[in-house]
Amino acid sequence: MKGIRKITPYVPGEQPNYSDMIKLNTNENPYPPSPKVKAALNNFDTEQLKRYSSINNPDVKAALATKHGLSPKHFIIGNGSDEVLAFCFLAFFNSSDPLLFPDITYGFYKVWADLFHIPYRELPLNEQFAIDLKDYTQTNGGIIIANPNAPTGLFKPIAEIKQLLEMNPDVIVIIDEAYIDFATESAVSLLDNYPNLVIVRTLSKSSSLAGLRVGYALGNPIYIQVVESIKSSFNPYSVDMLAECLAVAALEDDTYYTKITNKICETRNWFTTSISNLGFQALSSQTNFILLTHPDIVITELYHYLESQDVFVRYFSTIDRLKNYLRVSIGTQEEMEKVQQLLVNYLQNNDK
Amino acid sequence: MKGIRKITPYVPGEQPNYSDMIKLNTNENPYPPSPKVKAALNNFDTEQLKRYSSINNPDVKAALATKHGLSPKHFIIGNGSDEVLAFCFLAFFNSSDPLLFPDITYGFYKVWADLFHIPYRELPLNEQFAIDLKDYTQTNGGIIIANPNAPTGLFKPIAEIKQLLEMNPDVIVIIDEAYIDFATESAVSLLDNYPNLVIVRTLSKSSSLAGLRVGYALGNPIYIQVVESIKSSFNPYSVDMLAECLAVAALEDDTYYTKITNKICETRNWFTTSISNLGFQALSSQTNFILLTHPDIVITELYHYLESQDVFVRYFSTIDRLKNYLRVSIGTQEEMEKVQQLLVNYLQNNDK
Repeated sequence: MKGIRKITPYVPGEQPNYSDMIKLNTNENPYPPSPKVKAALNNFDTEQLKRYSSINNPDVKAALATKHGLSPKHFIIGNGSDEVLAFCFLAFFNSSDPLLFPDITYGFYKVWADLFHIPYRELPLNEQFAIDLKDYTQTNGGIIIANPNAPTGLFKPIAEIKQLLEMNPDVIVIIDEAYIDFATESAVSLLDNYPNLVIVRTLSKSSSLAGLRVGYALGNPIYIQVVESIKSSFNPYSVDMLAECLAVAALEDDTYYTKITNKICETRNWFTTSISNLGFQALSSQTNFILLTHPDIVITELYHYLESQDVFVRYFSTIDRLKNYLRVSIGTQEEMEKVQQLLVNYLQNNDK
Repeated sequence: MKGIRKITPYVPGEQPNYSDMIKLNTNENPYPPSPKVKAALNNFDTEQLKRYSSINNPDVKAALATKHGLSPKHFIIGNGSDEVLAFCFLAFFNSSDPLLFPDITYGFYKVWADLFHIPYRELPLNEQFAIDLKDYTQTNGGIIIANPNAPTGLFKPIAEIKQLLEMNPDVIVIIDEAYIDFATESAVSLLDNYPNLVIVRTLSKSSSLAGLRVGYALGNPIYIQVVESIKSSFNPYSVDMLAECLAVAALEDDTYYTKITNKICETRNWFTTSISNLGFQALSSQTNFILLTHPDIVITELYHYLESQDVFVRYFSTIDRLKNYLRVSIGTQEEMEKVQQLLVNYLQNNDK
């Protein structure tokens, strides 16, 4: 057969589904979405579904404009930040110079670059797993950085993001802020002064809506319009009517989400301290997960032990530098106390 | 700024939203989705949304396998047939020979080919607006045909689809069956004998779920797997959890959908006869819309008259051969009787 694309399938993380499991492998939020989301679903008239959802999602944009103090034209909405990022790659990275991103980061950047035949260069994180700005001064066709980065959890201060934008004024620099609500500060304040900045966000993590598929980008309206054109040329209605309706409800309940985000950060800090006391080393996370290791144990054995106890965490078997690390999403305080106890048991049983 | 994609934005049809309008411009279903869809929505636990939706949509595939008497491996599910078609273009049309499709057909084929830099050739429909099979014997990198075609509404018998497949054994031939439930016969029966056949379907039209965004392709599992790899490399979770749940409910209610499909076809036939009596000429439609013209009137004037009466239909201003045609979706019997009466009034007032 002619014309069939040869492609190595990207394998997403497993999605186990047992009633008593503790699922800490895909950085989902352990708390339910806002009660306003539930109310919106209950009030939704199913008959509406016979019509197409809106073009360009004005209600979601209006809610975001209010939230961020910007105009609706600063936003494009998509089916999760994955779709928004894919559209941004098609919109912005059409140079023969390589797209730059860290060698350890969200695994999808490389996948999209391959899919769209975009040349790219993966730049190694430094010894401390941090992004070294001076690597990003070389000739390039664009830059994408997750801040905080994943799966390291490390946050880069806004002053450094500003430097990065200043060093690269003639290419688009995407800052993927999937986990920003768990961190110190967003780069949104830089938008006014840096037209090359595009920020991508998701409702999957801090808004507890992974299953709803809503993400967005914000940036200079001139460039956002290019992404909108790509979306309109690919799948204009990708945000369905229920997703639009429920996303608006979520965006209008900052109070609830601030509360659960604070709880997750408190649990993260408690868990980090607790496991440090057990001899684990954790990178300093500003996300809802931590990357941990232990000098005296074979981490894959711990991985399988946790799995045997119905605790699912993430192991990156294909990343050499992470072969002795596990990424653990932060669940409820109760869940993390159970995990901490399992770690105590494991260390005792293995005489560490 | 370097690397910005130059793209002519695709402009989707308008989506007016007045309470008393008769909306016949985007081939939506005038009847609500199955009561089982409403029940599924009412029973949906909002808390589930904190988790990602499934990878590869096993529940939807199982429901489709039952419906079509095939295995789940014959199917890929996407965010509307638009997304599924976009993935199929990326999966199957990677040849330097041109993709072939009719010059008058679903406008998106050309848009995707442009977006993905796929060479293509648009082959003119014949005098009767029909697809001429002998045009499709030339060297090509793939073929896509909508059957029934849009916006003509014309259906091509399965025997001719079979011929098309036989003439082109070494490329993928996509049959876009968005409107097949309103027509005589699907090409599904050809799957066993023609591995080059891929059929794309949607729940937007006959299942009254345009706002939910669920479409699918069915074909030889070897080639469906390639589309699945593209999906996994673009946006693996594009079918959200509510869409999965409600689509399954719809797929399990053939009885309801057969009933409303029959009603729409009856109304279509009634409306076609009625307007023929008024001097209109309509192509013989096997869809939920008809393409009509009238020898004595300027069709754009009729378009604006209908619009002034809050009746929205579709005019294709950019297609030369359709400059004296309107595409009218079939609404409820009551709606179409109102439209028929408006046409009577219009002709009387204009002395035709």
